[in-house]
Amino acid sequence: MDLLKVDTIKEARSKLAACCEGIMPGTETVGLSEAAGRVLAFDIFSKENIPPYRRSIMDGYAVRSKDLGAAGDMIPTTLKVTGEVQLGTDSSMLSVGSGCCVYVPTGGEVPEGADAVVMVEYCEPFGDDMLAVSKSASPGENVVQVGEDVSEGGILLSKGRKLRPQDIGVLAAAGITTVPVFVPWRVTIISTGDELVSPEDLPGPGQIRDVNSFTISARSAAEGFTVMRTLSVKDDIEAISESLETAKNDSDLVVISGGSSQGKKDMTAVLIAKAADCGVLTHGIAAKPGKPTITGYDMASKTLFIGLPGHPAAALMVYEQLFISFWRCMTGREPMRTVKARITSNTPSAPGRKTFQLVKLRGDKAEPVFARSGMISPMSAADGYFIMSENQEGIRAGETVDVFLWE
Amino acid sequence: MDLLKVDTIKEARSKLAACCEGIMPGTETVGLSEAAGRVLAFDIFSKENIPPYRRSIMDGYAVRSKDLGAAGDMIPTTLKVTGEVQLGTDSSMLSVGSGCCVYVPTGGEVPEGADAVVMVEYCEPFGDDMLAVSKSASPGENVVQVGEDVSEGGILLSKGRKLRPQDIGVLAAAGITTVPVFVPWRVTIISTGDELVSPEDLPGPGQIRDVNSFTISARSAAEGFTVMRTLSVKDDIEAISESLETAKNDSDLVVISGGSSQGKKDMTAVLIAKAADCGVLTHGIAAKPGKPTITGYDMASKTLFIGLPGHPAAALMVYEQLFISFWRCMTGREPMRTVKARITSNTPSAPGRKTFQLVKLRGDKAEPVFARSGMISPMSAADGYFIMSENQEGIRAGETVDVFLWE
Repeated sequence: MDLLKVDTIKEARSKLAACCEGIMPGTETVGLSEAAGRVLAFDIFSKENIPPYRRSIMDGYAVRSKDLGAAGDMIPTTLKVTGEVQLGTDSSMLSVGSGCCVYVPTGGEVPEGADAVVMVEYCEPFGDDMLAVSKSASPGENVVQVGEDVSEGGILLSKGRKLRPQDIGVLAAAGITTVPVFVPWRVTIISTGDELVSPEDLPGPGQIRDVNSFTISARSAAEGFTVMRTLSVKDDIEAISESLETAKNDSDLVVISGGSSQGKKDMTAVLIAKAADCGVLTHGIAAKPGKPTITGYDMASKTLFIGLPGHPAAALMVYEQLFISFWRCMTGREPMRTVKARITSNTPSAPGRKTFQLVKLRGDKAEPVFARSGMISPMSAADGYFIMSENQEGIRAGETVDVFLWE
Repeated sequence: MDLLKVDTIKEARSKLAACCEGIMPGTETVGLSEAAGRVLAFDIFSKENIPPYRRSIMDGYAVRSKDLGAAGDMIPTTLKVTGEVQLGTDSSMLSVGSGCCVYVPTGGEVPEGADAVVMVEYCEPFGDDMLAVSKSASPGENVVQVGEDVSEGGILLSKGRKLRPQDIGVLAAAGITTVPVFVPWRVTIISTGDELVSPEDLPGPGQIRDVNSFTISARSAAEGFTVMRTLSVKDDIEAISESLETAKNDSDLVVISGGSSQGKKDMTAVLIAKAADCGVLTHGIAAKPGKPTITGYDMASKTLFIGLPGHPAAALMVYEQLFISFWRCMTGREPMRTVKARITSNTPSAPGRKTFQLVKLRGDKAEPVFARSGMISPMSAADGYFIMSENQEGIRAGETVDVFLWE
């Protein structure tokens, strides 16, 4: 009967989207050396042509292609060498006249008059300044035209691109030394529970070490978020409320990780209802595992509240599917990468709910990692997970699934 | 004829492996909060059982399964409620006698005597302390046994694991707060060339902006290496030699990115021969693009020297395939991730050489991105690349390839 109150993941996402214009990330400008891994906030256009001049892609001789006719091994064509292009120096006064050629190194500017470059391997200098060329050339051969790589005004990189090493190189090539990027979400993570002890402590009877604050904090940092603080608080409504109020001052996202018992779940809902002026948006989602997921929004402080399930693997998957995917959508980033793999054994799903299934990848095969609720080792053994839809009754061995990669 | 002198990638790797015991990375110990993304230097074993006690995975009642017999909707079994487990408090004095039961929340310890937990949904309290249970239970139902998740002395995470968010969570759960990780390579990157200008400058005639130092430096950082410095130096043997000598003092890896012309390549080889007491190991590799790749090793300072091709995409792919793959092999890390994809068009290869082909991924299809030598935009348009072997003459549309992902 609880199912009547829960949202589908899609509904939960829509509610976030409708309420959360306030947490649309701002933008800032950073230099190239800090830009790797950041997400572009605007399209970047080139202000220049690349290359700015016609460039040779070989060590060779710049020629007029029609001078070579049908030159070949047997009947070389003879040209007069009238100059040499040197990298890093101005060669704009050089030109190639009829029956002449000019030496050009790889990357050098092809002089006016020439329309092709013949590789040195096909050229034999003789006499003072003569060259025997044993190959014909077609117009444009071995020459990159002005703007052929990137044209002036053309788009270099699109909004939402997470800048990879090669993108930084492309920006450098185009002379773009600062880029507009999104300001990452600032996140506070609060673990609640009288039973929680920190990792350095030996749990006494009825106690357990806090896992979720470590997992969610590391996952947040990996996404580029700024982790403001990570707290562990006792099950004390006043104390937790106080932490939530503090977090509202400096965080865009407040993650509360409680337990998975009904009492814990109810308390998280009460706390979010109290802290968020728009109240609770979603009270449970139709997902397995992951049902005890709660969201709320405070418009005054522009803070999104999340209550995550207590089970570590569930908390991580829900965090990715609901909140990281929302962040990526807002910033125009491509969704989380999936790879196709064939499942090695029949895998049941929970009817009426999306089912998250952990898997281990071996080549293009995905082996289900079955985890009893709350176990932590399967999360570490898994390479990722796939999702079965509400309408699926499960999946048969040999069928193909889209695996979200954990890297 | 040049092919006679070049190494295959495999040969180049073997030469690195034989000479480079000296650059086997050291290890250091870091706390959990700095451990994400680092690579484990040793296997990590659990010192404890997880869970340390029998744990309920449901809100429910701990029972003796045989007391319930064939209990069902029609004929509930009546039990006496003799207690309640509370999270975070010592419940070890509780036990479940015959005909009795004890309330246990999710995550709570299952008291002695009980061997199963029945979900609250199937239980109806009545009177002062009685419970009607409308379901039978099998032994062990809804109970995680001691050490079922992680057993004492069992392996928790293996050497070579790059620590992901969930791995940090698993370590926290097992009470492991510091971990031994590899000390990352320290890298100096030197771009050489009279023609190079920095990104903020407008290239004059015959000049070009430096790209490789940005790409290789960002790629190094993404791998976790420590980038000591990035320099741009003119084509001046003395000046470059001085930079190499300085780098020997504090770097494990010195990357020299020159141009791709024959003269540049020769100069890089001379410089490496001079700086490295073991001299040049590899003078060119049988790869396209990527041939002008040079390696050398200095035993006295334990420094590996690399001359990368001038073409940006070639430099990046060679850096990954030769050096990052060598680092991963030394540290026991899994190799770079590949995904299978079907190529959308016939793609030629270079006979006798490994051919690197850039691709763009669309679902499980890989579209070749053809780049004329030295172009930079294809590198940014591509999602990765695959490699054709020396013996392949190319690959036909529809065939499956393993794509190295650029992320």
